[in-house]
Amino acid sequence: MSNTAGKTIHCKAAICWAAGEELKVEEVEVAPPQAHEVRIQILHTGVCHTDEYTRSGKDSEGSFPVILGHEGGGIVESVGEGVTSVKAGDHVIPLYTAECRECKFCKSGKTNLCGKVRTTQGQGLMPDKTTRFKCKGKDIYHFMGTSTFSQYTVVADVSVVAIDKNAPLDRVCLLGCGITTAWGSVIKQPGIKGSTVAVFGCGAIGLGVIQTSNLVEASRIIAIDTNPGKEAWAKKMGATDFINPNELPEGTKIQDHLVQITDGGLDYTFDCTGNVHVMRAALEACHKGWGVSTVIGVAAAGQEISTRPFQLVTGRTWRGSAFGGVKGRTEIPGLVEDYLQGKVKIDEYVTHHRKFAEINDGFHDMHTGDCIRCVVDMS
Amino acid sequence: MSNTAGKTIHCKAAICWAAGEELKVEEVEVAPPQAHEVRIQILHTGVCHTDEYTRSGKDSEGSFPVILGHEGGGIVESVGEGVTSVKAGDHVIPLYTAECRECKFCKSGKTNLCGKVRTTQGQGLMPDKTTRFKCKGKDIYHFMGTSTFSQYTVVADVSVVAIDKNAPLDRVCLLGCGITTAWGSVIKQPGIKGSTVAVFGCGAIGLGVIQTSNLVEASRIIAIDTNPGKEAWAKKMGATDFINPNELPEGTKIQDHLVQITDGGLDYTFDCTGNVHVMRAALEACHKGWGVSTVIGVAAAGQEISTRPFQLVTGRTWRGSAFGGVKGRTEIPGLVEDYLQGKVKIDEYVTHHRKFAEINDGFHDMHTGDCIRCVVDMS
Repeated sequence: MSNTAGKTIHCKAAICWAAGEELKVEEVEVAPPQAHEVRIQILHTGVCHTDEYTRSGKDSEGSFPVILGHEGGGIVESVGEGVTSVKAGDHVIPLYTAECRECKFCKSGKTNLCGKVRTTQGQGLMPDKTTRFKCKGKDIYHFMGTSTFSQYTVVADVSVVAIDKNAPLDRVCLLGCGITTAWGSVIKQPGIKGSTVAVFGCGAIGLGVIQTSNLVEASRIIAIDTNPGKEAWAKKMGATDFINPNELPEGTKIQDHLVQITDGGLDYTFDCTGNVHVMRAALEACHKGWGVSTVIGVAAAGQEISTRPFQLVTGRTWRGSAFGGVKGRTEIPGLVEDYLQGKVKIDEYVTHHRKFAEINDGFHDMHTGDCIRCVVDMS
Repeated sequence: MSNTAGKTIHCKAAICWAAGEELKVEEVEVAPPQAHEVRIQILHTGVCHTDEYTRSGKDSEGSFPVILGHEGGGIVESVGEGVTSVKAGDHVIPLYTAECRECKFCKSGKTNLCGKVRTTQGQGLMPDKTTRFKCKGKDIYHFMGTSTFSQYTVVADVSVVAIDKNAPLDRVCLLGCGITTAWGSVIKQPGIKGSTVAVFGCGAIGLGVIQTSNLVEASRIIAIDTNPGKEAWAKKMGATDFINPNELPEGTKIQDHLVQITDGGLDYTFDCTGNVHVMRAALEACHKGWGVSTVIGVAAAGQEISTRPFQLVTGRTWRGSAFGGVKGRTEIPGLVEDYLQGKVKIDEYVTHHRKFAEINDGFHDMHTGDCIRCVVDMS
């Protein structure tokens, strides 16, 4: 039992006070975990485009003031009543996709989208509809059920998983989002072995899809990005081809080019951009009769995807996944072992490091084009 | 060997001379089948919305003058050199989806979309890029590789299948399109047993989807149509519920209503309307995490489907199929046997009969609302 158990903890957190504002590192009060809740000391956190999406105000459902962050690694400080899945001292990764193992969704065997804490999580609240964070007397909202931009955070016990203590938290924190999402999107899609794949967008997700397609032995992996600097990255992860759509002859659509160079299109395509026009291109680059396109990227609020229904009637499938279809509590421990055994790359994704005081620079790093992931040291 | 073999046959055919015009029954010349072609005496043919779609001029790729019709039954009159799969006297169904068993598509094991005669079929021509029909000295185009609105037609040998002579051709001709399409769309979709299904549109295709969902033991089958007269039809085929979207409270979307009454949405939905707005509703009526929506209907040229990508990212799948994914030469003989053994209903779909001279009335019948299928006697 830590000596802070049961007490409010005073620590630093990065607060976004209003949509569009930069984060401010402030002293916050973090209340003790209630029943079926876990308080975690966060040691490291990645900065992801989804944090930026909400910070910028483009997410119409964002609540402010809020503590963002959802790609963290830490150590359990204390647990509330009834928590049996983790204990103080455990090394853990918070999960924005919960896994209760009891709801209709968890029991279906068909999806990782647990329904247990979904509604309150979407509202920026804990399951009892209150918040554990206070700053300057004001309640501060949670984010994605994780809020890893705080030195201490509180999460539901269904939203956290213990991992091997040998795993460095400044690396495996990235399993909280990007790399796991990419891994699951490929691993859970049958048929990729021996098949052709195109990956649109070579950020952390796209590179993860390339890495995992290579792992499962896709026959050809075409990486697509408008940033020529991504070619080396893509090839390092296992891409066999790299195409910069801006370098195609004027008027040539990327999907038409891909269909042409692959004798009819790709077996599997992945959108890792969040751009709805790219999502369409990814579908239309699929082979007639069997091509499957997976949407991974998150589009801005209100945007829509479109295509001619003929694309579907002639045998293409349009699907998507959240967190790669991965059940975090069940599957992340194994993924950590895969990393420790050298089967899954994580270190390579960490291109930038920031101290907590520089967290806004971590957001800026994302836009520089040479950043895959920036990991923030929360100490 | 029939005494017409090798000779041009003079017979009657219904010609659509130009987009938007009614058909005219004219005397035509039907040339003998060339190598790997089959000449068929058509005895009966259904009239389908796809014929009307091209007749009306909405199909921007339609070629005129043309002999429409793709849901026929007949007897092989003679075969060209090298034809081994059927012989004179065989009872046959022409197939607008060929099955060559040799091309990349046929060999893939993943699709029924044979590539062998696709290009020329789309141009209204036989594989050698010529036509077998002449009228008043003019070449007349083929349609969908079948042209069943002629007393004699010529098709590629990969585009025809022999069936049991005990099957009445005035019924099983409907296996040339609608009923097979519906049957395949359900049979080839794993998981429908014990699942909930919604069927949008209760024409021949929709009723076929209902019938087949019932056959594979779906737990609940919700039929949806704006024509209240379709309720009795839908229930007869096995629907457990019928909803007329026009009878919902004003402002209630059908997809929201369906999600509400099914505790989260349907496991499987089928669009059998060809209306792109209905296609969207069918997708969005699917259950989060696992719902699968299949587009069967053919939309008008240039129309597009849209949705928020969030619908896919949260686990819905949008797919489609042509001819129900059925490989006609391989699978239709078995479907005919299923019909003869009472496992698959066909008779019930034939609500209207027309003599050949009245074929335009068959087109009008389709719009009356109480017509499922009109079968034309070509004699």
